[in-house]
Amino acid sequence: MPEQVCIVGATGALGFGLALRWGRVGVPIVIGSRDLGRAQEAAGRASALVPHGDFIGLQNADAVLDAPIVVLSVPFRSQSETLTNLKNVLVEGQLVVDATVPLAAAVSGKATRTLGVWQGSAAQQAQEMVPEGVRVVSAFHTVSAALLTDLEHELTEDVLVCGDRREDKQRLAELVNLIPGLRVVDCGPLETARIVEQLTPLLISINVRHKTRAGIKITGLES
Amino acid sequence: MPEQVCIVGATGALGFGLALRWGRVGVPIVIGSRDLGRAQEAAGRASALVPHGDFIGLQNADAVLDAPIVVLSVPFRSQSETLTNLKNVLVEGQLVVDATVPLAAAVSGKATRTLGVWQGSAAQQAQEMVPEGVRVVSAFHTVSAALLTDLEHELTEDVLVCGDRREDKQRLAELVNLIPGLRVVDCGPLETARIVEQLTPLLISINVRHKTRAGIKITGLES
Repeated sequence: MPEQVCIVGATGALGFGLALRWGRVGVPIVIGSRDLGRAQEAAGRASALVPHGDFIGLQNADAVLDAPIVVLSVPFRSQSETLTNLKNVLVEGQLVVDATVPLAAAVSGKATRTLGVWQGSAAQQAQEMVPEGVRVVSAFHTVSAALLTDLEHELTEDVLVCGDRREDKQRLAELVNLIPGLRVVDCGPLETARIVEQLTPLLISINVRHKTRAGIKITGLES
Repeated sequence: MPEQVCIVGATGALGFGLALRWGRVGVPIVIGSRDLGRAQEAAGRASALVPHGDFIGLQNADAVLDAPIVVLSVPFRSQSETLTNLKNVLVEGQLVVDATVPLAAAVSGKATRTLGVWQGSAAQQAQEMVPEGVRVVSAFHTVSAALLTDLEHELTEDVLVCGDRREDKQRLAELVNLIPGLRVVDCGPLETARIVEQLTPLLISINVRHKTRAGIKITGLES
């Protein structure tokens, strides 16, 4: 049986889409939100869409407790506050999968531009903020939330993953590979997240021009 | 008959690969170099590989003169000097296709890292340096030089193009579409080059890990 996954911010589109896709292939999902009511509402919506799925909604701190893998899928403007609030909850050995994108939209700028993050990337900011021994990998920046949520849509794209430890990326890859049509590509150390996080605004720019939900596939790899 | 293309820096791998691929489909190619001998040597090598191709080698200033389209494919450390030297040669109406990547390798850093460019990207630096009326688009940052040069290899990847004027991108697209297996994707205004230029180090990082020559394909578009 697959590991349980906690998704902080699964009330948002990307996190909710991941919850649906994983729930459908038998991964038990804990949906975290600042607000218990919203977490439960999202879990209810997920159960309605994937009736055989295992979804529960909890407040963030309760959701994260004992979760082996925590996906952080919150807007950039909430990332720092969310991690501060989880500082006394996260413990050594937990893996945080950061999906945060430092879009300029966080400060009312364009969604095709990003903010500079002092640490280099939102993922590196996350790594700095989590307690000692909690590891961070970066992922899911090029996967369309709308396509994840549309369960009729057959996915066929890559998930670009950055992280400093090969075993952490491998652990995430095993989970991602449960979702048909997604392939994990190891992009290098966590610092490479400063490039991959920019791909969300690039795809938003492409979406605007081509009226689509673009994703990325790396060519030249074995499938 | 297709427009002539001038490639400044076609003595390097990317420029040389483009020269071969275009030469093979009948595009007349002028190879520019600081050194006349090196330009002629590259033109000779190209002619040997593509015997029906139309290649000549000239010094940069002569090569650029009257060229409707100039591809700038030089190392970042030479970009500024090259454009300074071309300041009195480039004239209104010419289209400069900038393929420069601000790799940290330019200052002996890692090829998986980039330098910050004050203007935002090498392409924007180019736009600032060319005379009034010369337009700049950014392209070719994700196409492997080695695969371009290997004429046995069947290409199947995207060329991500940034530029402020749709007609400039269209003009380049028509030329790129002559090369079988390459598809142009309009990524937005020239400022988006600051994202696309980062994709070269990302692909270098992927290449190291996966021992391949990676490229990028955008999913969700009509082919």
